[in-house]
Amino acid sequence: MIDDKECTHVHASSGPNLDGIRSFIGYALRRAQLCVFDDLIQALEEVGLRPAYFSVLFVVSENPGLNQSEVSTALGIQRTNFVTMVDHLEAQGLIVRQPAKKDRRSHALHLTSKGTAVFNRARDIQSEHEMRLIEKLGPGGREQLLPLLWRIAED
Amino acid sequence: MIDDKECTHVHASSGPNLDGIRSFIGYALRRAQLCVFDDLIQALEEVGLRPAYFSVLFVVSENPGLNQSEVSTALGIQRTNFVTMVDHLEAQGLIVRQPAKKDRRSHALHLTSKGTAVFNRARDIQSEHEMRLIEKLGPGGREQLLPLLWRIAED
Repeated sequence: MIDDKECTHVHASSGPNLDGIRSFIGYALRRAQLCVFDDLIQALEEVGLRPAYFSVLFVVSENPGLNQSEVSTALGIQRTNFVTMVDHLEAQGLIVRQPAKKDRRSHALHLTSKGTAVFNRARDIQSEHEMRLIEKLGPGGREQLLPLLWRIAED
Repeated sequence: MIDDKECTHVHASSGPNLDGIRSFIGYALRRAQLCVFDDLIQALEEVGLRPAYFSVLFVVSENPGLNQSEVSTALGIQRTNFVTMVDHLEAQGLIVRQPAKKDRRSHALHLTSKGTAVFNRARDIQSEHEMRLIEKLGPGGREQLLPLLWRIAED
């Protein structure tokens, strides 16, 4: 039998040294982002939405009538990819494109009533997900984290 | 002419409302992670490495002789994807697989001399990238950010 101390020691010395890589901001960000998305992807499966689609519905819900390019710019999604996403949401009956008031050649986005219903359920799911993260971060963690992330994300 | 104040007001009221989505931890994480990776991907192009490959070389360099499954577990990369990555690094002459001492059926990973040279240059590039991020975060930012990210990334 190996006593606890030795066992711990063996374990510690034989395990890989990851101190260096874990101190890299990009690596830590990516690992955290993957964990968060794993949780959200799984939670949103109930309503058949991927996180990026949820974010589109969210922005359209908060800003009905915004045109396609305004939404894609706001979300930082490339125009071509965004058109495909809107096609998909339209085919599912969640969103409609209407001629924009200001410029009738551009497309204003609106939720349909089905879109609103799906979004409302997704919003609750996302709130529960957010609560899990807030709990993991501990008191004041979210308030510390968000401004740091936006400092990185903004030029 | 519209005076400054009105112009600002028009701009503020006509721009999309993104306060809600910007307060979501997952959304902020993803936007920050994409910015960081954009910068790192571009910087590492000089040595022909993607960030994930750099992280493999980094862990192998710090832990020569570690076996494949230990490296993939450490980095949270799925086994199948990881084997493809090691194939690629081996084909480029950066890494070699050798029979592991403990278990000769498993593969221990080592950098080749070419791998060491490429990695050393990549390490400098990554350090400069890290300095840019530290500067963006401001005094004490990195020290605040890292523990919060690992709180999320670990169970």
